[in-house]
Amino acid sequence: MNIIEGGVTAAQGFEAAGVEAAIKYQNRKDMAMVYSRTPCKAAGVFTSNVVKAAPVRWDQEVVAHSAYVQAVVVNSGIANAATGRQGYDCCRQTADKAAQLLGISPDAVLVASTGVIGNQIPIDRLLAGVEKLAESKADTKEAGTMAAEAIMTTDTISKQVAVQIELDGKTVTVGGMCKGSGMIHPNMCTMLGFVTTDIAISKELLQEALSEDVVDTFNMISVDGDTSTNDTLVVLANGMAGNPEITSKNEDYEKFKEALHYIDTTLAKLMAGDGEGATALFETKVIHAASKEDARILSRSVIGSNLCKAAIYGHDANFGRFLCALGYSGVQFNPEQVELYFENAEKRMLIYKDGVAADYSEEEASKILASPEVRVLVDMHMGEAEATAWGCDLSYDYVKINADYRS
Amino acid sequence: MNIIEGGVTAAQGFEAAGVEAAIKYQNRKDMAMVYSRTPCKAAGVFTSNVVKAAPVRWDQEVVAHSAYVQAVVVNSGIANAATGRQGYDCCRQTADKAAQLLGISPDAVLVASTGVIGNQIPIDRLLAGVEKLAESKADTKEAGTMAAEAIMTTDTISKQVAVQIELDGKTVTVGGMCKGSGMIHPNMCTMLGFVTTDIAISKELLQEALSEDVVDTFNMISVDGDTSTNDTLVVLANGMAGNPEITSKNEDYEKFKEALHYIDTTLAKLMAGDGEGATALFETKVIHAASKEDARILSRSVIGSNLCKAAIYGHDANFGRFLCALGYSGVQFNPEQVELYFENAEKRMLIYKDGVAADYSEEEASKILASPEVRVLVDMHMGEAEATAWGCDLSYDYVKINADYRS
Repeated sequence: MNIIEGGVTAAQGFEAAGVEAAIKYQNRKDMAMVYSRTPCKAAGVFTSNVVKAAPVRWDQEVVAHSAYVQAVVVNSGIANAATGRQGYDCCRQTADKAAQLLGISPDAVLVASTGVIGNQIPIDRLLAGVEKLAESKADTKEAGTMAAEAIMTTDTISKQVAVQIELDGKTVTVGGMCKGSGMIHPNMCTMLGFVTTDIAISKELLQEALSEDVVDTFNMISVDGDTSTNDTLVVLANGMAGNPEITSKNEDYEKFKEALHYIDTTLAKLMAGDGEGATALFETKVIHAASKEDARILSRSVIGSNLCKAAIYGHDANFGRFLCALGYSGVQFNPEQVELYFENAEKRMLIYKDGVAADYSEEEASKILASPEVRVLVDMHMGEAEATAWGCDLSYDYVKINADYRS
Repeated sequence: MNIIEGGVTAAQGFEAAGVEAAIKYQNRKDMAMVYSRTPCKAAGVFTSNVVKAAPVRWDQEVVAHSAYVQAVVVNSGIANAATGRQGYDCCRQTADKAAQLLGISPDAVLVASTGVIGNQIPIDRLLAGVEKLAESKADTKEAGTMAAEAIMTTDTISKQVAVQIELDGKTVTVGGMCKGSGMIHPNMCTMLGFVTTDIAISKELLQEALSEDVVDTFNMISVDGDTSTNDTLVVLANGMAGNPEITSKNEDYEKFKEALHYIDTTLAKLMAGDGEGATALFETKVIHAASKEDARILSRSVIGSNLCKAAIYGHDANFGRFLCALGYSGVQFNPEQVELYFENAEKRMLIYKDGVAADYSEEEASKILASPEVRVLVDMHMGEAEATAWGCDLSYDYVKINADYRS
């Protein structure tokens, strides 16, 4: 697997665009398009929130029932959630407009929105935006970057990644972009994510690969415990790489899954580290848990704890908070068996063992917690399962951003 | 039921004290004692966290197996959690010392601690503190207040309340105090709470009344989603009111439950409103839910959401966040049926109905959210059940307090 530059335009046959449409704010890109020159198999995973935004309901229909997908239209600024019938009509009009301009069927168009809940999208601006997108789309790296920038809300960096693998002598490319910074919580991902690939694969296996992979990637991140109404992750596969179509779980399928896992993990970590107000990526790895599910629950409980997050922000080696968050996770264990370590790229330090604090230097521990990527390693001494979860610290800026997000 | 001044010394035969023992900090009261001149029936509820502080394990033993309880010794500053065998020995020595000074049995002494996790308590200072407590205890209102002040950590106000009821011509008094500001989350209460009463009641019914009542009081508050290692709520009943002992669920039992409910609700709301960094008490009442459990889950999901809490802090009528928090709670419902209102003491305003925003004034809504007590009323239109949960807003100061709590 080779990591390459680029994002959604890295794979053959994909174009993208990002434009200013003044959906909510002036002078910033706020609409994006992803387009494939040929029809794609599509797979998707969507929010588990009972309150689903209109585009989520639209996309669930399209992914389930359309023969193929060929375009995605995204806007930021307004989420098109809690918008009733008018909100769903807005999705239909967007798809109609894009279909007409691109010469494809409306049910081959996915739509996605992110931003404030409860406002209606100004439909005229949205449709004018679709026109600009259709005119300006291109298959360049720059066009992919413009799209990645256009879907940002409170994100501070645009997020994209791409890799290549070889399947039977053919080069297959997988690329993706995502946005997500607040309202980020496992189950599922609370974000918009778009992955494009030129691989030839059956729709069923594409969906299975995606559904399996999110469990240990996007569903293992949390910024603030709030599962959004708009979470959407879709993969489009147009088959242009010319590999023998994958229709069974063969070696090629495993190679593709590995590539997809790299894309998903990278995007998920980018989101966690760019959490609203974050100054650090806060990773928790649980090893030797009794079961995989226990390991997931334990690691997510730690990265989801406000008190742990605040301790990371304050570089405060207040290990009791980490132990406490493991303790209320719902998983049963003997606290005396657990070992806690703080880690950064250079160093691992034992903090807690045999039921009491280890003999560590507060100063050294605080230095580790001041790293841009901080890891808490938890050894449960109970079994062989492990899991990793990613979050970020809790800073003044998180509160600032969310106390007046709309103003 | 009459609400009266006072706290743990309001009921007949109870004494209290609060002294400076320099457990962790100088120049502040940090040890408290509650003492009854006669033996008490005791009931208790304790943290559900797997990681239980030493005093929690001690008290669980005492409440389950001791014939009676006559004293409680509390320290703030250090939680005596994650302290291994040494921590448990510390409880035993505290009980021995108090028993010797008070002329009672060591297994009639409860202990409780709150503060930082993972440090050992300096035993010499703790035992010296017990001596000061035993010398200075008194049955005055002032002594009760001193005790309520001594158990505070990041609390900004001391918390006590008392009521009186008449049972068969006898005046029965119930009083209580608690502390709790951070690490506050349902299941259970994440706090220290002590209720004293001179009622005569069987131990079984005292425990049953307490266990039932916490479900809709202490377990319905949340400051930060972190369930502490030290949560303890105990009720001591010494029988000195001279009422006919309650041994069945008669009318007197119901009157006592009502009094206990008032005490618990008042203390729980005081804790929620005094959440770390809080500028407002944030209440969510869910009505017409399909079941009581649904109503509890829905209301707790809203007051537990960082995004809702930040919206309250910012006085931002961003109603989508409240709807979103209902949606990811795990309860199934039709978002188009739900109505959302913002309320304060003077006004109720419809915000969301029929799947879309109601026609409300942002300015007026923002004014409501700027009140010291803000209520979000949620009408599910599904059944007859209701529940109320209490939390607080999320402010810069929460982060500040928790980023350097120990320094």
